This record gives sequence, structure tokens and C-alpha cells, in this order.
Amino acid sequence: MKIGMLGLGRMGRNMATRLAQGGHELVVYDQDPKIGKQMEGDGLATAAQSIADVREKLGEDAIFWVMLPAGEITESVIAKVAETGRKGETIIDGGNSFYKDDIRRAKTLREKGIHYLDVGTSGGVWGLERGYCMMIGGEADVVRRLDPIFKTLAPGLGDIPRTEGRQSDDDRAEHGYVHTGPAGSGHFVKMVHNGIEYGLMQAYAEGFDILKGKASEELPEDQRFTIDVGDVAEVWRRGSVISSWLLDLSASALARDADLSKFTGDVADSGEGRWTIEAAIEEAVPAEVLSSALYARFRSRVEHTFGEKLLSAMRYGFGGHVEIPQ
Amino acid sequence: MKIGMLGLGRMGRNMATRLAQGGHELVVYDQDPKIGKQMEGDGLATAAQSIADVREKLGEDAIFWVMLPAGEITESVIAKVAETGRKGETIIDGGNSFYKDDIRRAKTLREKGIHYLDVGTSGGVWGLERGYCMMIGGEADVVRRLDPIFKTLAPGLGDIPRTEGRQSDDDRAEHGYVHTGPAGSGHFVKMVHNGIEYGLMQAYAEGFDILKGKASEELPEDQRFTIDVGDVAEVWRRGSVISSWLLDLSASALARDADLSKFTGDVADSGEGRWTIEAAIEEAVPAEVLSSALYARFRSRVEHTFGEKLLSAMRYGFGGHVEIPQ
Amino acid sequence: MKIGMLGLGRMGRNMATRLAQGGHELVVYDQDPKIGKQMEGDGLATAAQSIADVREKLGEDAIFWVMLPAGEITESVIAKVAETGRKGETIIDGGNSFYKDDIRRAKTLREKGIHYLDVGTSGGVWGLERGYCMMIGGEADVVRRLDPIFKTLAPGLGDIPRTEGRQSDDDRAEHGYVHTGPAGSGHFVKMVHNGIEYGLMQAYAEGFDILKGKASEELPEDQRFTIDVGDVAEVWRRGSVISSWLLDLSASALARDADLSKFTGDVADSGEGRWTIEAAIEEAVPAEVLSSALYARFRSRVEHTFGEKLLSAMRYGFGGHVEIPQ
Amino acid sequence: MKIGMLGLGRMGRNMATRLAQGGHELVVYDQDPKIGKQMEGDGLATAAQSIADVREKLGEDAIFWVMLPAGEITESVIAKVAETGRKGETIIDGGNSFYKDDIRRAKTLREKGIHYLDVGTSGGVWGLERGYCMMIGGEADVVRRLDPIFKTLAPGLGDIPRTEGRQSDDDRAEHGYVHTGPAGSGHFVKMVHNGIEYGLMQAYAEGFDILKGKASEELPEDQRFTIDVGDVAEVWRRGSVISSWLLDLSASALARDADLSKFTGDVADSGEGRWTIEAAIEEAVPAEVLSSALYARFRSRVEHTFGEKLLSAMRYGFGGHVEIPQ
Repeated sequence: MKIGMLGLGRMGRNMATRLAQGGHELVVYDQDPKIGKQMEGDGLATAAQSIADVREKLGEDAIFWVMLPAGEITESVIAKVAETGRKGETIIDGGNSFYKDDIRRAKTLREKGIHYLDVGTSGGVWGLERGYCMMIGGEADVVRRLDPIFKTLAPGLGDIPRTEGRQSDDDRAEHGYVHTGPAGSGHFVKMVHNGIEYGLMQAYAEGFDILKGKASEELPEDQRFTIDVGDVAEVWRRGSVISSWLLDLSASALARDADLSKFTGDVADSGEGRWTIEAAIEEAVPAEVLSSALYARFRSRVEHTFGEKLLSAMRYGFGGHVEIPQ
Repeated sequence: MKIGMLGLGRMGRNMATRLAQGGHELVVYDQDPKIGKQMEGDGLATAAQSIADVREKLGEDAIFWVMLPAGEITESVIAKVAETGRKGETIIDGGNSFYKDDIRRAKTLREKGIHYLDVGTSGGVWGLERGYCMMIGGEADVVRRLDPIFKTLAPGLGDIPRTEGRQSDDDRAEHGYVHTGPAGSGHFVKMVHNGIEYGLMQAYAEGFDILKGKASEELPEDQRFTIDVGDVAEVWRRGSVISSWLLDLSASALARDADLSKFTGDVADSGEGRWTIEAAIEEAVPAEVLSSALYARFRSRVEHTFGEKLLSAMRYGFGGHVEIPQ
Repeated sequence: MKIGMLGLGRMGRNMATRLAQGGHELVVYDQDPKIGKQMEGDGLATAAQSIADVREKLGEDAIFWVMLPAGEITESVIAKVAETGRKGETIIDGGNSFYKDDIRRAKTLREKGIHYLDVGTSGGVWGLERGYCMMIGGEADVVRRLDPIFKTLAPGLGDIPRTEGRQSDDDRAEHGYVHTGPAGSGHFVKMVHNGIEYGLMQAYAEGFDILKGKASEELPEDQRFTIDVGDVAEVWRRGSVISSWLLDLSASALARDADLSKFTGDVADSGEGRWTIEAAIEEAVPAEVLSSALYARFRSRVEHTFGEKLLSAMRYGFGGHVEIPQ
Repeated sequence: MKIGMLGLGRMGRNMATRLAQGGHELVVYDQDPKIGKQMEGDGLATAAQSIADVREKLGEDAIFWVMLPAGEITESVIAKVAETGRKGETIIDGGNSFYKDDIRRAKTLREKGIHYLDVGTSGGVWGLERGYCMMIGGEADVVRRLDPIFKTLAPGLGDIPRTEGRQSDDDRAEHGYVHTGPAGSGHFVKMVHNGIEYGLMQAYAEGFDILKGKASEELPEDQRFTIDVGDVAEVWRRGSVISSWLLDLSASALARDADLSKFTGDVADSGEGRWTIEAAIEEAVPAEVLSSALYARFRSRVEHTFGEKLLSAMRYGFGGHVEIPQ
């Protein structure tokens, strides 16, 4: 199929490349013309000069895949495409937009006869090679019509064993992409995916902390162990209940440096972890673990909270405990 | 009554003073003889030279109130008193011992005909003046026999309004002391008291953090508030649902310095907060808030956990996120 | 001063009563005319037939105190007052509105020359007698002008001891009301107040759970205690570090029935607990305890989460653990 | 090698079978003689009549692999083997013992010249086929000497991709078993493994809860999604960041019944999840996520906590909120 890719950062470029390698015709555009030209030079895509140029090169019923950082940029580029958009066109937001923005956008675009799909993708820097796991929200028939695109981007069956007991007329999930429901649902499912990701990561983080902490000199001497966490991560990859891709990554990092000394420990978080908690609260679903995982990141980025000082102040108040440097 | 006070730190000295002022005869002993002599000089107590000397000065059926830091010191002093102990004597552990140690000690001492009471006390540095809130474990008749001691130490009815709906033949709780059950139960209840204390403190800490954080420049400008937290603490003391003594202390600290700048924010924890969680786990009782309050203190004392570095390492692994100083 | 009270539910009626008793002139209105008439009969207020009638009876620069459940009703009544509003009038939202709604309303009303104050109040059913603790957002000079109203509603100095170390030119906080900043900040501070309230309540709840659980037959027999939680609550009111008004209420409830058997344990939550967490997340402030307290309420209202079933399903998958009724 | 397997439950039998199939000579014993006879009939092992008989059949320097449920049974069988034990023999505890018990046992046995290894194994019902992931504590040379046993039980390299960056002289971890340190460390690492397992499981559980909850009728209609969680689990297995074996199991369970209606949702927990938290507390390591995961299981098994009733009672006290069935 013919696809216009707007945004050629790492994700956009890799996805365009995978699509081109899969036989699709790519028209690409980025504010910075360099990457587009390079892709054109490599015979992967036609570089466009502007959004209007992309549209012209795509012709009727154009498909725009917007692959930009979530937030203002995505919002403004989609607005720009929509402004001059024609009936029958399709806009795909492949970034990490807030699902409520998708609901709003789809509604507005529908009035203009423009289709809107929101595609949450997981796979990170590995997607070009392994394929992208995709969660797709939007009109069922549009998703069906664009199936060749998704099929190319997806990892496919690969050598992952089939799920025991699974019977479904719809084999898309097995190929690594799924139609999750109406507009917004794709990013919603991706958002929850990231929320879970935070929780999983924090579970490993705490576990390895406890392994490391077992060497603490504050423990009785016969209760101390100095554990080779690199070896432990490696062994857990081998038939244990907690094997996972995140563990593979941990094992690799620990294999390189068991002290992880080059990492500061200031951990960023993105919108999706936060929105997951907000969704849980809206639904009145208890989400202890996902919240704790988010808070651990917040806490990692400050030296001390004001609240901790208040704890010290109260302790000083009732017990004369002095937690003041002198 | 005649009481021997072993340990004249801040708590022991204050309790001995309150007892003496209440008409009891005090024999006091501390490794450091200075304080005992001073109390003797003030006409509050007779200073003894050793545990044996305390026993001699007390005479038959001696009552020893051990008021020392929990742990090895308390254990060894109680062992020393017990070693030469006589039938009919009573040992009271007024410190913060682990309740399982009380159960063990009471059992051993019972075989020697020595009574054992464990008294958890709350009131901190304010107890001398306000009286001590006491939770007492041990044999019911011994607790009754020593009632004059507890009555003197306790705050009494004071001007605290009576609890609506309360009807009880036992008015001790209203006077600020309670017989909680067999040996160990006093310290158990005190332990839970401290667990709750951690939770309450953390609730205020987080709340004030959120108030302070509302001035953050990362929020949209029309959503920022610079809130006078000293004023807020003060107003909440006045008829709000969350008024409490801990809030009074917070208000006082914030009144002196709304930035609490002299506090480092490294918050210590003691055995009781930890044992509370262990008790919850033994009972299979979910204790989210009390655990989180404890963990917040653990976290406050380290710059970064190893786990946080592992989070960064995983993020680098799957997304190329760079959280490395360069 | 002359005040129009819109909404005569328990809160509105009590506040109007306290104002009338404090010498203010009240014009009251409620959809249900009965209460207004009754207040008029008691000589406390003039009953109006409509919002327009309230305005007419108040005259120029009318002050409308809207005291309705947060949400659509409050929104629509404020909109109605604003629609026909005149320059110089003041609208006070005394309910529990979301502070972002206040920011929006104040902005809109400002363009019409109408003043807007948001007043968060704590004190519940006890406010009529004890006075209302108030957190007030809005223009400083308007808050000053309406000071007589707030002074009457507030508890005043009463017999609450002054905060040690407090020095302030502004004695309003000591009287139980505080100007917290621009519009929205009053409800923001009240929101955080409620967030803290949830945390405090949950800390007590968990503590009492642990006390109760100590009688569990799954514990070794010599480790079991059957603790009189009513007595414990009572004694903690007496000089302990964790004394508070919430503890007073707990003691009262436990005095009436130590098993609390008439309570189902399904615990409701209101917007403010939820918004507090959302605010924490927006500010990147870790709020473990306040979140856990909210989640405990969510969890209390369902028999089982779907997630729990999934846990069982996984356990069955890897270990053959059967958690299936047969 | 010659190995005596004590305990022929599902785990013991499967491990003995895998060892026999790998060329080792097995002498097996269980209280219930049936399984031993059956294995003998299948040519897999020699069935013994008693522990003494096992010893006789094994000859000098006998190796006993004890594979029993953690707790009293394991303790008593090990004691029995030790009682008549001879210098040079080796006892392996392959169950889920508490690591402090291992430290104690190893110390006692060392005095008798008996070697002790603690082997934590993961792999559950899948181990016979996939091999067992093993964490081994004890003397290094004994672990080396018994290497053929561990090598047979372990999964081996299989088709799991090698960890990028890994360089080690010790290739055991890559084959699925690791020497973690002195006695106790094997079970310690396995314990933390299970703690992490709880955390991972809870992260998935909460995420799927949020997906399910998005269909709630309490949400605005245009914000509701009815998500096919079976499809979502399937797609996440395909190239997503959160792919894992636990997710595979979830996908399989959801493929069979997307409502998981045959599961009650009462989730058991075992000692290891609890000990992990106790270890964290001893080390002063914050373990929010692992604790929350444990508490979620506690909470899943009761209809209501007493604490929830207390929340209702407080709410009734300050706000007249009625959470009482009538």
C-alpha cells in the first residue's frame, strides 16, 4: 500500500523502513529533510517537502501515519493534516497519545469524513528487527482495509509457541497486532501495557535490591550473603517462572556491569504510567503495584521530599529525636 | 509504693520523678551515678550503687522498673536482676522490647516465682508533664496490685472529654492505662501504636508534600498555588476532621520554619515499626499504609537504591533511554 | 452582613443557622421550600422563592453562598446565579467542588465583574456547634471584606492551646479560617485535607486489624492475644502520640460495639480522595499512603477483582495450584 | 551418580525421573510405597523401604535429596537422616525451606562431617520436560562434586538466546543452575525469586483489571471500551516489552475462558512471599511492590477486614455517612 510517514525519528524511520522492506510504497516527511533524503537515497522511500507534498504524492484516499512524540507536536501535525484533509483519507497516530485525545479527534474527523486510527506500539528499538506489537483502535472496516500495513509491521507468528487452548477466528493477535475497539482503545490498551511494564520493572528492581542488600554489614555476619546478581539474573532466564524479556535485558545489563555504576538511578516516567493510574481511579480499580512503581520513579528523582523533613520535625517534636546536621 | 528504677535516661528519670512527685518511694540506679545523685539531692529518690543495692534498699517483694533502650542492654539487665531474683519480686520492662521476648522472659521468670510485666508507654518527652499513656501486659492480679504505680504515671481523666457511648466497669483506660492481656500483650499493643504512628505521620507528610508541590514550575501557570503550609497546619487544628497531636507538632515546627530547612530528611525507624509489619504478615492482615510508611523511611536514608539503577538499565535496554551522566 | 444561602441540606442549614445566630441577615433558598419556611418560622432567616427572589431580597452587591453537593447541581446553580449576575456580586462555593472548576469559574465570572470564592470546609455534622474550619480561595480583598462571615462560621480560638512558636500578623488561621491564595486554592487545600483524612483513617484501620488478628487461631497458641480494642482506643486518647479526633470517633464507635457488627465494611469514597492522587501525580509527588487508603476503599466494595482470578489462573498454570471450587 | 530421593510427590517423582532418564542411579523412598514401586516397575529407580534402606542401597558417601513440603516434615526427615548420618554424606534440601533453617542445619551437620546443600528450584509442573532452574547454596567443592546431578536436572542451554555482553568462566548459570554462596543462599535467592513472582503477577492482575474495568457503566458512555482481554494477552506475547512466561500462562487461561469464571479469586500465598518482605525489612530495603502483591492475596481471602468496618464507623461518626444495611 501507499503510506505517508510523518516524523522520522528513530521510531518513524524504523517503521517506514520495515514497511518499505515489506513492499509498501513510502512517502516520508520530517521537519529535518536529511533523513528523508537519506531514505530516498537508499531506495526505501520518496522524500516529500511538506505535508501538502506528501498528500500530493500519495494521491486519493491518502494514509498518513503520524509518528511523533506525544503531546503538542502530534496534536498540531494532526490538526494540520486534518485542516486540508479530504474525505476518505486516513490519519493514524502511531505515537503515545492520551486516549481521550484520540476519542476527541476521531469524533471531529468523522464529521469531515476522515478516518482516524490510534495505534499503540510496543517493541522499542528492537521493533525494526523483531516487528512491532500493535494495539489498534478505530473503525473495524478501516482497520481491515489497512491490514497489509499492520501485517508487515507486526512480528508475525515467528517461533513463539502457540498459546495452548487458544481458538479464534481472528488470527491477528497471534501475528502481533489486534483491533482493540473504537478510537482511543488502541492507545488505552498500550497505556495499560506501559502501566504493567512499570510494575514488572519495579518487581525486579525490588527483588535485586533485596539480593544486593543481603551483603549489608548491618546484618549478623552469619546471615550475610554476597550474591552474584549477574549470575542470578542469568539463571532465572533458564526455566524459571519469572523469565521474561525484561529479565533478559536485566541479565544483559548486569553481565556488562554488575554494579550498574554508570546509571544515576534517576528514573524518568512518561505520560502512560500516570494515565494508567488515573484510569484505575476513574474505574475505582485498586492499583497498588502500578502506583507504587510510578511513585518509586518520582521518588528517585528528588534528593529528599518535604514530607520527609516533616517526619523528622514531628519526631523531634514528640521524642526529641534529632535529625539535624550539626 | 516502693519502686526501683533501673536506667535514668530521659524516660527513666522523668518517670521516676513523676512517681516520686506522686508520693512513691524511689530507689534509682544507672551505670552513670551522676543522675541518681542529683535526684537524691533533689529529694526525689534514694540512689543505689548497684542492682544488688537496689534490691537491698527495696526489701522483700521488690519491684524493678527497667527503663532502658530495647535490645541487648534491656535483655542483660533483666537477666542480671533475674539471676539473683527472689520469689515474689516483680520485673517491669517499660522500654520498647519485642513482645516475643516478653513472652519468653515471662515464661522463664514464672518458673522462679518472679512476676513479669511489659509496659509499653507513649508520651515521649511530654510524659513528665502530661502523664504517660500505658499498655500493660502480664498477670491480672499483679497489674492490680501495682495499680498505684500506674495510676500515678498515667495522665488521668484530665480535661479530655469522655468518650460518648462508653460504659465500662474498668475505668483504667479512661485514666490512660490499660491491662491488655498476658505478658507480651502490652508491648504488642504499643508496637501497633507505633505502627499506626508511622502511618499517620506519613499521611500528613504526603499531604504537605502535595501542598508544597502545587507551586512547581512544571505545572501550567494558572494551576500553581504557593500555599502557606504553616497557616494550613494551624487552621486544620481548628475544628477539622484531621486535627491531632501530630498535627499540633507539625504546626509548631512549621510555625518556626515553614521550610523545615534545618532537617535533613533522613528519617530513622525503630524496631516497632518493623515488627508491626512482621506481625501483620504473620496474621495475614493487609497493611499497605503501615508498610509504605516504613518504606518511605528506608528510602529516605539512601541516595539511590540499586533497584533504581536497574530500572534505568532496563529502560536503556528496551528503549535506548539514556539515564547516564555524561 | 446580608448573605443568601442557596441549598439547605444538612450543611447549608447548619451554616445558615450559625450565621444567623452570629447576627447576620440570612436569605435562604432551597428547591424544597419546607426548610426555608421552617427557618423563617424560627426567626433565623428570610425564605426566598427563587434565586431571583434571593437577589432581590439581598439588594446590591449580593453575596450568594452556594452549599450543594459537588458536581452538576453546584455547576448549574452557579451558572444560573451568574447568568443574571451583576457587577459587584459575590458567589461563594462552599461545597466540595473540584478546584480546577473553581479556577475556570473565577476566570469567567471575573470578566463580568462578579467575585468568586471557593471555601472548603471541614467539621462535618459537628460544625454547627464547634464551628467550621475553612480554607478560602479567591481575591484577597474580597476575602477581607467578607471577614465577618468567616469569623462567625469559624470555631474561633476556643480552648485549643496556641501553637508554640507561632508568630503571625494574620490571626485568621488561629481562629479556624485561612485565605489560601487565588480561586481554587481553597478547595485544593480542602481536597488535600480529605486525602490526608483517608490516610489517617486507613492507618488506624490497619492497626486495629492487626490487634484483632492477634487472636487468630492460625497463630501458635502462646502467641495469641485477645485484645479489648475498645479499651485500647480509649487509652490511646489519653496522652499517646496518636491521639486525634478520628481516634476519638473510633473509641466512641468501639465503645458502643467492639465488633462494629452493624457496619458492612463497604466503604465509599468521594471525589476529593481521588483528585488528591491525581494532583500528586501531576506534581510527581510520591503518595503511597494516600493512594493505598483510596484503593482499600475501592477494594472494600467488590467481592473479588478480576485480577485475583487471574492470579489464581496463573498459579494453576505454573504450579497446578487449584483455586477452583469443586 | 547414585542419589537417594526422599519424597515422591509431584516434584520429587519428576526430578527423580529426569535424573534417571539422564543416566543416574536412583534409590527412592516415600511414606506411601506405591509410587516407588511404580517407578521401580518402570525401570527408573530402586524402591527402598525406609531411610535406612536408602542408605544401605546407596553405600558410602550417600547423597540424599529431600523433596518434601517446607516446614515440619522436611525438618523431621532431615533430622532423621542426620541422626544416623555418616561422615561424608550429603543432604540436599530441594524444597522451599526458610533460608535461616538452612544456615542452622548446615552448621549442625558440619560438626558431624555431613555436607548440606539447599537447592531452590523453579519450574513447577513444567520442570520434568523443560528442566529445573536451580539456585544452590553450600560448600563450593561439594556443589562441584555433585555437578553431574545439577547438570542433568537443569534445562541446559536449549534454544534460549545467549545474553548479550555476558562473559563468564562459570557457565553453570547459562545452563540453568547457579552456586549462589554458602548454605542458605540457595533458598534465599529462590525466596526472592518468589517474591518477584508475586510482584510480576500482581502487575499483570492490576493491568487486566483496568482493561476489564473500562467497560464499567459508571464511566461516561463515550469513554467505555469492551476489550477482548484474551486477544490483548495474546498480542502482548508478540514482541511487546512485557512478554514473559507468566503472560504466556495468562494468555492460555484467558484463551480457555476470558471470564476466568471457574476461579474463585481466593489466592493463597506461601512462606516465601512473606519471608521476602521480612528480609527486605531486615535489610531496610523498600519493597512496596512486593509487599502490595502479598497483601492483595491476604485481602483476597477475606470478605471484609475489621479495618474496613472501622472506616465506616469513623465516617458515620464525623459525617453521618450511613454504611449500614437496613
